[in-house]
Amino acid sequence: MKTFSIAIHGGAGTILPALMTPQKELAYRTALNEAIRLGSNILEKGGSSLDAVEAAVVSLEDFPLFNAGKGAVFTHKGTHEMDASIMSGLNLNAGAVSGVSKVKNPISLARLVMEKSGHVYLSGQEAEIFASNNGLPIESDNYFYTDERYKQWQDVKDSDTYQLDHTDKSEQGEKKFGTVGAVALDLHGNLAAATSTGGMTNKKFGRVGDTPIIGAGTYANNHTCAISCTGHGEYFIRAVVAYDISCLMEYKGLSLKQACDFVVKEKLVKMGGEGGLIAIDKIGNIELPFNSDGMYRAWQHSGEAIQTAIYK
Amino acid sequence: MKTFSIAIHGGAGTILPALMTPQKELAYRTALNEAIRLGSNILEKGGSSLDAVEAAVVSLEDFPLFNAGKGAVFTHKGTHEMDASIMSGLNLNAGAVSGVSKVKNPISLARLVMEKSGHVYLSGQEAEIFASNNGLPIESDNYFYTDERYKQWQDVKDSDTYQLDHTDKSEQGEKKFGTVGAVALDLHGNLAAATSTGGMTNKKFGRVGDTPIIGAGTYANNHTCAISCTGHGEYFIRAVVAYDISCLMEYKGLSLKQACDFVVKEKLVKMGGEGGLIAIDKIGNIELPFNSDGMYRAWQHSGEAIQTAIYK
Repeated sequence: MKTFSIAIHGGAGTILPALMTPQKELAYRTALNEAIRLGSNILEKGGSSLDAVEAAVVSLEDFPLFNAGKGAVFTHKGTHEMDASIMSGLNLNAGAVSGVSKVKNPISLARLVMEKSGHVYLSGQEAEIFASNNGLPIESDNYFYTDERYKQWQDVKDSDTYQLDHTDKSEQGEKKFGTVGAVALDLHGNLAAATSTGGMTNKKFGRVGDTPIIGAGTYANNHTCAISCTGHGEYFIRAVVAYDISCLMEYKGLSLKQACDFVVKEKLVKMGGEGGLIAIDKIGNIELPFNSDGMYRAWQHSGEAIQTAIYK
Repeated sequence: MKTFSIAIHGGAGTILPALMTPQKELAYRTALNEAIRLGSNILEKGGSSLDAVEAAVVSLEDFPLFNAGKGAVFTHKGTHEMDASIMSGLNLNAGAVSGVSKVKNPISLARLVMEKSGHVYLSGQEAEIFASNNGLPIESDNYFYTDERYKQWQDVKDSDTYQLDHTDKSEQGEKKFGTVGAVALDLHGNLAAATSTGGMTNKKFGRVGDTPIIGAGTYANNHTCAISCTGHGEYFIRAVVAYDISCLMEYKGLSLKQACDFVVKEKLVKMGGEGGLIAIDKIGNIELPFNSDGMYRAWQHSGEAIQTAIYK
């Protein structure tokens, strides 16, 4: 019998029960549920994994709690610079964008780049022209504004500090990587992965993390797995994390679980790279490893209930 | 006895004897000789592979025949947008930049990003601020102007055509990927790789290729190899070319030659990805595979003469 599987994440980091309120936890779980349900509905009807991961990530981008789309963190200049990428395991087609400020759903722009640009990776204000030429929704700076992100930025904007994600005064010492992502296996056996982020609070100099880097933050290959990462992007780039898991499976014969555990819990830990990832293999196994305190996540296999989790 | 090895490239593509003049060939060979000699001199004295690959790439960037630094192609808007990356095999440290227009030597900026920014990847005009804050030479648009690149751009600027590198009326059908790069093994056993490019003539929408992507265009790891790629970047990104070679060696036990031949002459060919790469392994073996008609290249092992080649 043909089955589908899907998993999503809303970021990893210092996410501890002691730092959470019941209201906030409910809001996160509701958002995760809604996003994965949108993806599952598509997969259930025989839709493609590409459509499912895009729909799930759009939902997370639209939800202001996560650091992607609406709710993206502020840069040092008080702007938003968002990155995203998507990949199809069927044909290794891929699309990516970085440094876009006005596109409502960067993940949909990444998909458009994949399907219409003749390129893989477009960047900056010029990528926004490609978006508007092709009819994607463009928003004003106001749309991306949220009180919480503004406060986080105010706390650090006069310093040279950049923050991996939101740390506010009530959450001293908290580190979160609020990137969002989705991976899916559809009824046709095709894998896909998608990732989207606002990057680091107070980031400067056009900093780009692993999110738009095919092989680092996002990878999908029908022969192995689909991966979407969240974490301290610099380490994920240097470790080529997403493709490393695929290679460990393809070249060394590791299972998805073995490959995920080795990369996230050994290699990244040795380098000092905090974060996690979501992964699905070609037969629908799901792994959700992280080496931080928590990771917002949800997953579902066809015929089973949606599950959500936040802590270890 | 401790030995060093170094290899450089000045791009691959439709490079055929019939399209070459003796004067032009001499100019290319002279430039390749000079660049590799600068790198070798550093290695000979016990200098680091990082210093050697940076020096060789700076020399190629300064040489107007190559599509990097001075001589970079024109974008659709008549500007220059350059990308570069560098990686140390010793500690997997890496630095990358994309879309910089005024920095004389983008490879030196990539190195500065690696060593001074706390990040791996900076982009656009903001990256130029980081460059000038740190004292790197900044040039006017005039510096990057060359007659040949201007003519190539004029030929296609009113079309939607982008070109992989320079094609002028006298070279109908010629395709070149003028990216430059260097890989080296130093006397201390450390590998390094560096790549720099102006991208595609008439490129639009902030297009980024494989050059600044760690794992795609550039990779170095003391346990395996150092790689610098040149070719149709979109395919090199999707195939995660540079890290794929490293993984085939580390996880599947392939030799450098086996891994290079498989990736460049089988996988990329099946995908339709034209180009090549230069590679050195941890014991100093050099491979220079390409699936196009030619690749500007030079290489040297310690105690031996510099060799240069252009065609198959």
